[in-house]
Amino acid sequence: MGRPWILDYDGANCTIGAAVGIIGEKWTFLVLREVFNGVRRFDDMQRRTQAPRQILSDRLARLVDRGLLRKVPYQEQGQRSRHEYRLTEAGLDLYPVLVALMQWGDRYAVGPAGPLALLTHRDCGERVQLELTCAAGHKLASAREVTPLPGPGARKTA
Amino acid sequence: MGRPWILDYDGANCTIGAAVGIIGEKWTFLVLREVFNGVRRFDDMQRRTQAPRQILSDRLARLVDRGLLRKVPYQEQGQRSRHEYRLTEAGLDLYPVLVALMQWGDRYAVGPAGPLALLTHRDCGERVQLELTCAAGHKLASAREVTPLPGPGARKTA
Repeated sequence: MGRPWILDYDGANCTIGAAVGIIGEKWTFLVLREVFNGVRRFDDMQRRTQAPRQILSDRLARLVDRGLLRKVPYQEQGQRSRHEYRLTEAGLDLYPVLVALMQWGDRYAVGPAGPLALLTHRDCGERVQLELTCAAGHKLASAREVTPLPGPGARKTA
Repeated sequence: MGRPWILDYDGANCTIGAAVGIIGEKWTFLVLREVFNGVRRFDDMQRRTQAPRQILSDRLARLVDRGLLRKVPYQEQGQRSRHEYRLTEAGLDLYPVLVALMQWGDRYAVGPAGPLALLTHRDCGERVQLELTCAAGHKLASAREVTPLPGPGARKTA
């Protein structure tokens, strides 16, 4: 293998780096996991993630600030008004990241009893998976079949 | 929407949590990004990620320890022996996580010039993407079409 082209380019505008700058932290992933599971309330999230309250509060505020979650007020009878957290469209579009983590974890970080949750297609009940495909419709077996090329935002390093 | 079933189950054996425990940290993602781009040497990674050397060294050691990278010795003429870092099979299987992050970043965290890199199919040159599909061959448009169900490892909370 030759010298990778990426070494001649500036990594500053890499969108993996940008995405990870927004969500790349353990508690943030766990909060997103809860929201994708339909858990929307602070106390439920706190109990399930075991995150310290201050950290959970901070991560939720950051996700709201960055447009991934929105706060929706609700009130139960006889109680003061509270709010719950729901995914925005940008938040919903993070789903493949969670599924990819889960798929990897189901293979390499699973206990003897098997995974906690299974993802199924709402309409037909079959198991859901992520596939790497190309625009011509080919399925790719692994990263080895991918060639990364410089994109429009690539800038050569000095 | 009713109360999510997940609230009745113990989150301790969730494989998203386990996967994030292994790789859920900014520098670790950036190191993996470099390796998937073909960058294998410490100094190249350090220059590109701008990670402090001690942090980079620590993250590489952890990735080796957890079986995602392996160290391979090499020697250039007149220099002392060094080693470079290559993906193991378990490491290679993390690729969808990186592609999912990149796909999200290309949409929500990209600069005006566009993305730094494009992923293409080695064999036909077409653009590569991740697709959420089910075992019956249906394409799913979003997380809304997924129903998570308790898996074999699900344990009810007390």
